[in-house]
Parts: sequence; C-alpha cells; structure tokens
Amino acid sequence: MTSSLRLSRRAADLHASPIRDILAVVSRPGMVSFAGGLPAAETFPDFSLAAVPREAAQYGASEGDWALRERVAADLAERDLPVPPTQVLILSGSQQGIDLVAKLFVDPGTPVAVETPTYLAALQVFRFFGARFVEFSAQDHTSLVGARPTVAYVNPTFQNPTGYCYTADERAALAATCERHGIVLFEDDPYRDLCYEACARRPLCANIAQGSWIYQGSFSKSLAPGLRLGYLACSPDLLPLLTHLKQAADLHSNRLSQALVLQALDDPARAVRSARLNAFYRERRDGFAALLDQHFGDLADWRLPAGGLFFWLQLRHERASLDTRALLPRALERQVAFMPGEPFFASEHGGRGCLRLNFSHAAPEAAARGLAALAAVVREAG
Amino acid sequence: MTSSLRLSRRAADLHASPIRDILAVVSRPGMVSFAGGLPAAETFPDFSLAAVPREAAQYGASEGDWALRERVAADLAERDLPVPPTQVLILSGSQQGIDLVAKLFVDPGTPVAVETPTYLAALQVFRFFGARFVEFSAQDHTSLVGARPTVAYVNPTFQNPTGYCYTADERAALAATCERHGIVLFEDDPYRDLCYEACARRPLCANIAQGSWIYQGSFSKSLAPGLRLGYLACSPDLLPLLTHLKQAADLHSNRLSQALVLQALDDPARAVRSARLNAFYRERRDGFAALLDQHFGDLADWRLPAGGLFFWLQLRHERASLDTRALLPRALERQVAFMPGEPFFASEHGGRGCLRLNFSHAAPEAAARGLAALAAVVREAG
Repeated sequence: MTSSLRLSRRAADLHASPIRDILAVVSRPGMVSFAGGLPAAETFPDFSLAAVPREAAQYGASEGDWALRERVAADLAERDLPVPPTQVLILSGSQQGIDLVAKLFVDPGTPVAVETPTYLAALQVFRFFGARFVEFSAQDHTSLVGARPTVAYVNPTFQNPTGYCYTADERAALAATCERHGIVLFEDDPYRDLCYEACARRPLCANIAQGSWIYQGSFSKSLAPGLRLGYLACSPDLLPLLTHLKQAADLHSNRLSQALVLQALDDPARAVRSARLNAFYRERRDGFAALLDQHFGDLADWRLPAGGLFFWLQLRHERASLDTRALLPRALERQVAFMPGEPFFASEHGGRGCLRLNFSHAAPEAAARGLAALAAVVREAG
Repeated sequence: MTSSLRLSRRAADLHASPIRDILAVVSRPGMVSFAGGLPAAETFPDFSLAAVPREAAQYGASEGDWALRERVAADLAERDLPVPPTQVLILSGSQQGIDLVAKLFVDPGTPVAVETPTYLAALQVFRFFGARFVEFSAQDHTSLVGARPTVAYVNPTFQNPTGYCYTADERAALAATCERHGIVLFEDDPYRDLCYEACARRPLCANIAQGSWIYQGSFSKSLAPGLRLGYLACSPDLLPLLTHLKQAADLHSNRLSQALVLQALDDPARAVRSARLNAFYRERRDGFAALLDQHFGDLADWRLPAGGLFFWLQLRHERASLDTRALLPRALERQVAFMPGEPFFASEHGGRGCLRLNFSHAAPEAAARGLAALAAVVREAG
C-alpha cells in the first residue's frame, strides 16, 4: 500500500476475511473443501429467461419488484410473521442486509450484541463500522440487560457456525428482552429452509409487538447463491431508512434474478423440490455423521445439526485449547480445507479447539477422503 | 420514526433521493418522464441462459469471474488503460463503486472534490459518510491545489448531468494535478459507450504513472441496467482493500449477469450492435434537440451533448435564478417529469434555473407532448 494513502479510520482496520483466503485455494484440483457454506450445485434449479419480459432488464425500484415483495410477504405470513409487501425490501443477497443495518445503526463505539460464536462476516461488517461487541447466547442474555446494545444480531435457526436451533422458549425470551430494553432485534434466517428434523422455526420477530426489528432471509441456500438475492422485512419505522441506504449502495437488486426467483417461488412444484432438497442434504448430513464417528469419535464432540450446512466440532482433552488456525496450513497440504473456529468469536481468545465443517458440498467419497486426512492432521497436533 | 431509535450519526442525516421520489410517480399511465437516466428498453439484447453452465449459479469470487475480468482488462487496454485482470473488480452496478470508495476514504470531515454540478447519487453517498465538499470544474481546479482533498470524483465523458466531455488537455491537466498533490483520482465513466460525435474519451487515469486511482464503468447503458453490473479498475495498492469492502458489502456480484455480460462482450456482433445503439440514440437526441428549439428556444440555453443521455438546460433572464424544484409539482400535474438542477450541486444554492432532461427514454411523440407541457409550466413561472 502506498504510504501516503489517506484511508478512512474504518479502512485502516480492514482485515482479509479468513474464508476468502481459504476459498482462494479450495478450487485447486484434488482439494476437498469443508470450508465454505457452498450448496451442492446439483441441487440448483434450471433457470430460464424465456418467460421473462425484456422490460425486466430496465432499472427498477430500490425496494424490489412489487410481485416478488408480495410473494415474500405471503411466505412470511405463512411462517407467522404477517407483514404487508410495503415492509419487504429485496436485497442483493442477505450479506447486504448486514451492511445496511450496520450503516443505519453503528458508529464507532456503538454496542452491538452478537452470539458466541456467530457468523464471521457479520462480525467483520459490524467491526468495520466500529461496533463494540456484547456477547450473548441462546441460554444467557443477561449481558443484553446490562449493556443495552443498540442492535442484537441473532441467527437462531441452524446457526452458522454451530448448527444450533433456538427452542420456542428461547425465541420468546430473547424477543422479550429486546422489546423490553429497546434493543433492535436483527434476525438473520438464511438456513431455515434446509430443515432435516422437526424443530421450532417461528421467527423471533413474530413476538415483537412494539419494538423495532429486522428479519432477513436468503434465496442462496434454497435456490442458488449465484443469483445473489435475499430479502428483509422490518418494522415500518425502518423500511424507508433501509430503502434509502439500499439505493445509495446499489440502486436496486438484479431484476433478472428477481424474475427467476419469483418463478421458482410460484412454481407449483416448489414444495416437492424443497422436500427433495432436504432429503438430499439429510442424506449428506447422515453420511458425514457416520464418517465423523469413524474418524473423530475419540478426538472431538459435536451435535447432529437439525438443519443448515455445518457440523461444529469441539476437540477433546489436550486439544481443547488448540488454535485451530495453526492446523490449516497442514490440512491444506493434505488437500483438505476447513474453517477454524476462532474467526466466529467477537473476543480475541474465543473458539480454541473448534472447527466448522461444511457437509453439503463434498460428495461422499471426497468427504471420506477429506475427513480421514483431517483427522490425521488433528492427531499429529496432539 | 420511533423516537427511541438510536441511529448512527450518518443515518440521522439520511435524505430521500429526489430522483427516487420522482421515479415513484413516473410510472403512472400517461406520464412522460425526462427525469431518470433510463435507456430505451427496445435497445436491450435478448438474454438467454441456455449456454450458461449450472455451476454459474454457485458462489463465486468477490473480485468477479476471471473470464469477465480478463475481458474487461482487454477492453480497457483498447482504450489505452492497460491493466492486468487482477486489477479489475466486478461490481453490482457502478453505484456500488461509489459506496466502496466512500467507505475506503471518507470519514466525517474528509475533503472530497466533486464537479459543479455532479452526479447526485455520488453526492448522496459521500455526504452520508460525512464528506466535506471541495468544488471544481473541468476548466478550473485551483481549489484542488489549495484544499488537497483525499479523493477527486470526476465524470469526464458525457457527464451526468451536463453532458460535457473533457478535452484531451483538460483530461491531462486534471490527472496531473491529482498525481502531483497526492489526490486519489476517482473517474466514473458510465456513458462513454453512448457516443454520437467524435471526441476525446481517453481515461484520465491513463495519465497517472505513480498515484492512486480508480476508474469505473457500467454495463447499464450499453447493455441493460437490470443486470446491475459494472466494474472498476484501480491502482494495485487499492484492489485488495476494495475487494475486502466488496466482500463485506455483498460477497460477490451476480454470476448469471456476469455470464450474460461476458456473452454480450464476446459476441462477434458487438460492434454492430454498438453502432446501431448509438445511431438509435443519436436520432433521439437530434429529434429532442429540434423539439427543444421549438419549445424552449426563447426560454433556455443548452449545448448539444456529444454523448450520454441528457440535455442540461439553463433558463434565461428572469428565470435564471428560479428554484426549479418548485416547478416539479406543476409539471407532474401536467403529466411530465424532469430533474431539477439543485440536487446536482454540493453547495446549498447551486443549480438555480437549471433542468436536466433525459432524451433516451421517451419515444418521439411522447417527447413532443412532454416538452410542450414543460415549456408551458416554465412560461407560467416567468
């Protein structure tokens, strides 16, 4: 970097994303990647623009196309979060929602509550805008009462990275805490459609009668990430503000993607496709679990995730406090990639001895090879 | 807005965009709009995903797809700005480039140089991050030497809103000033492909040997805005920083759009299509100019734009200092929309008596009707 560059204060602290650096090597031939949250490409629908009118290539509304906003509102009503389409904002992927919410609320020093652990790219964005983190968990949010953060960011359903799904009681309790203390609840729900066991999935935001809230979802996991399309719904006070921020960020979301997603959501075969998708991933998860038993049975603990894309491993005994970032170069040498636990924690020393393993992307034979290699790397680090 | 909302300092100053508010009414039946910068939908190519592989719906690189970065780099070399593909970043529309550059450089109080007038949504973004504006023009940039802004934002080719195109000397002079004084040159070049007369279009950034620079372009005007795709090239010091910001903003750009744009750029008929597009718009421009002569000949002055999408009118005599925002409600009543001049100026009192008229979107009969109505509104405000 040129030494004379006068960067903004926020940019002086610009970190590379650990995921980015890993993704840069995982496309090498022969590499088995458990690192990203990549859906399996064989699950993507066939997209066709044949029925999309030419006018869809024109500039559009910052809020998103009305027909898609209506469709999303109808879907939200079905999950017990009834909102009019005017409270729906179409996003260029749900990562954009995090950027917009951070812009709206976060100044240097603003307290932002995050789970321990949480989605690392959310930490990255909040940190970039200068957030001071307040940590909480599904079971313990006393810190919220004391610190009274401006926003609480939560990923309650098949969480990234842990796969945890909040119970109905935990959902009600966190929403009540936010509402009572004037904390904006920011619920990020990208994995809810990848569901392999019955469990509570009612949005936390559905419990909020008076306070301000943002609920966001994604079409990246249930349809395809390359479309870069997500959405948010929010309390009516926030929609105009988030719309202005959206407009300043990229004018509006891709309209061909909006048309393609609307087609997929309106498809009468949607439920069948969703069931098939979940059956496919359930089988991958169960195969992965069997391989974990075989290779990591004496090395780590984990829970079977009821949905989503990840296993979260906690190494045992003398390896419980290992900095798993140190394992990564050795794993990559052996042609296997994973996500170390540390970047998912707001605090400096969180995440020791933890690994996040994606089970959706690698085909079974590759997963077997990769887990055997990874177990060997962990064993050597004993 | 809920009074208890604790917004960021930047959000407290969140203004609605004047264009947004106008675009909300221009879709009414019978309305003739000269307000937006909308290309004519009949110029859009037919897009087909038939040849796009399923893998293109997967997550991709934050920098953009390699083949498209290569193609953009080759195009830039042809316009005398040779960069390797590694210095190209694909954007979700060039509006995103403004957001990323503002994030990288602008803190509250950071001096940012802008033209008088300039693109209003750039003002909006820089203002949002707290910029203090320094104004300059193609002919006079002494203010840059005195104020030494961090960034100078310039739209040198068929400018929005004025349509002005910098001469070769003006290009060289501004680039030299930026380089000499350590000012990052940020060149926004979305209209260059809509060219109706021969004129200097060599990027200013091509003159910079040592300093930091960003050059950005758009596929919204030459292909279709609904694709939301643009690109930037920059000096090598800035690419990693802008890539990290891009990743935090939306992970990466839409990959279907990237595939469709690559198809269009690789199409052997590209040059023919471009010539046809320019012939189409040249005819619209000339028809519009004839209508202006007819209806505004005694009311305003303007220059015939050599490219781009806009006429910029300066009202004459007693109307020269009119606040044209006041004309808008009356124009809308008569079913015609335009952009008042004021929002294109960084300073409070700039832009009096000015109107920006888009000539590309309205078909000839509608343009005739709209200009007659608009002239009547202006005449009544005499």
